[in-house]
Amino acid sequence: MSEAGRIIGVLGGMGPLAGADFVARLTLAHDGTQDQDHPEVVLFSATQVPNRTKAALEGGADPLPAMLAGIRLLEQAGAGCIAIPCNTAHLWYDAMQAATRLPILHIVNAAAAALRAAGVAGGTIGVMGTPGTLALRLYEQRLEPLGYRCLTPSEAEMAELVIPGIAAVKANALDRARAPLLKAVESLAARGARAVVLGCTEIPLPLRGAGASVPMIDTIDAQARAALQWWLEAPALLAAQ
Amino acid sequence: MSEAGRIIGVLGGMGPLAGADFVARLTLAHDGTQDQDHPEVVLFSATQVPNRTKAALEGGADPLPAMLAGIRLLEQAGAGCIAIPCNTAHLWYDAMQAATRLPILHIVNAAAAALRAAGVAGGTIGVMGTPGTLALRLYEQRLEPLGYRCLTPSEAEMAELVIPGIAAVKANALDRARAPLLKAVESLAARGARAVVLGCTEIPLPLRGAGASVPMIDTIDAQARAALQWWLEAPALLAAQ
Repeated sequence: MSEAGRIIGVLGGMGPLAGADFVARLTLAHDGTQDQDHPEVVLFSATQVPNRTKAALEGGADPLPAMLAGIRLLEQAGAGCIAIPCNTAHLWYDAMQAATRLPILHIVNAAAAALRAAGVAGGTIGVMGTPGTLALRLYEQRLEPLGYRCLTPSEAEMAELVIPGIAAVKANALDRARAPLLKAVESLAARGARAVVLGCTEIPLPLRGAGASVPMIDTIDAQARAALQWWLEAPALLAAQ
Repeated sequence: MSEAGRIIGVLGGMGPLAGADFVARLTLAHDGTQDQDHPEVVLFSATQVPNRTKAALEGGADPLPAMLAGIRLLEQAGAGCIAIPCNTAHLWYDAMQAATRLPILHIVNAAAAALRAAGVAGGTIGVMGTPGTLALRLYEQRLEPLGYRCLTPSEAEMAELVIPGIAAVKANALDRARAPLLKAVESLAARGARAVVLGCTEIPLPLRGAGASVPMIDTIDAQARAALQWWLEAPALLAAQ
């Protein structure tokens, strides 16, 4: 019954609410009137992958072996592409892509498409994320060549607003996360950002429906739309192989 | 990195929002401060399973082969138990359980536990669901021996409120689903139901946070709590094998 090659593989669990939300956003982004109109998905909520920021910045346990095992699980389940709703995990993107023949949809490419869709095709933007994502310039590396200049929160804002906000989401305390994360968005806007990329998949969850003075780029939703696009184009891609 | 035997397998996609929501509820039901505190999950969003009600009542395509293929996928992915966040699919429970050595958590048992937790240990309750679930008395068969008497919506209420409400959720129109489904809940309460089981996993989605005059039993949340309980007890179960 499965549509061979068209299953969307999701390496989630980083965190688990973001992975679940990815599947919901994928559904909500697609018009359909019955279950059968929607893509088949295999989500592996790989909660036991070691902390990505700790590995990147503090010499913590390497998350790559567990992520590669997750990719192997998705391959064996019949996935035709892989989406990873965790920005920090993309610091290991090249190593993961080298280890699988399946296309791994890059979350920064998805964010760039969402920026364009929001009418921000270049110029100064804000990028929020984990300390690992920001320190290793995940967004700058792909967005600066496209004509974007990336502002990031100050060290004090990271310590007082962004890091506690992300931690609150991971502790299921979405209400507690909202105000500090929104304050960090507005600070970037005040410094000249025309849009702010919520470049950690925990951050959009408490900010849905929260008004900000500039567009907020929801990287879970952007990644889900990229996966939906892959699924819509998959029949032609598979036919061409 | 995976915890052998403790992965929660989810046969979802029936519908896709309910399956995604199951993983979210599983996360929200469990205290944790970091990703690694949460269970590993494999969700197969098996959207291509033929319509369950059509098969049960109208001679539509048999959903069992596709559901068994989904169970096989979850077994191969390393699942230690299976939860199916779709009530109507449980009409094929015995055939599915006979085809796998993994325990399949029965959604009516989960609803019964939630009823007890709500202080309703017997007596008259309401049950909403698809025409298939109600016609084949899925709830009555397991709940009447426990001392419950099940009221169900009238034919007119099914046609005007419940069926359109479920269809609206499947079309992503949650706002449109809320009023008719709540009206059906209140009608059962007015007829004497001390609680109403939302016995189709589409129904809780628009009713979260909606006040009703009696407790509403959310079968997605109940099923997620049953899976969490299995996960918490799994180390002892596995050690005893």
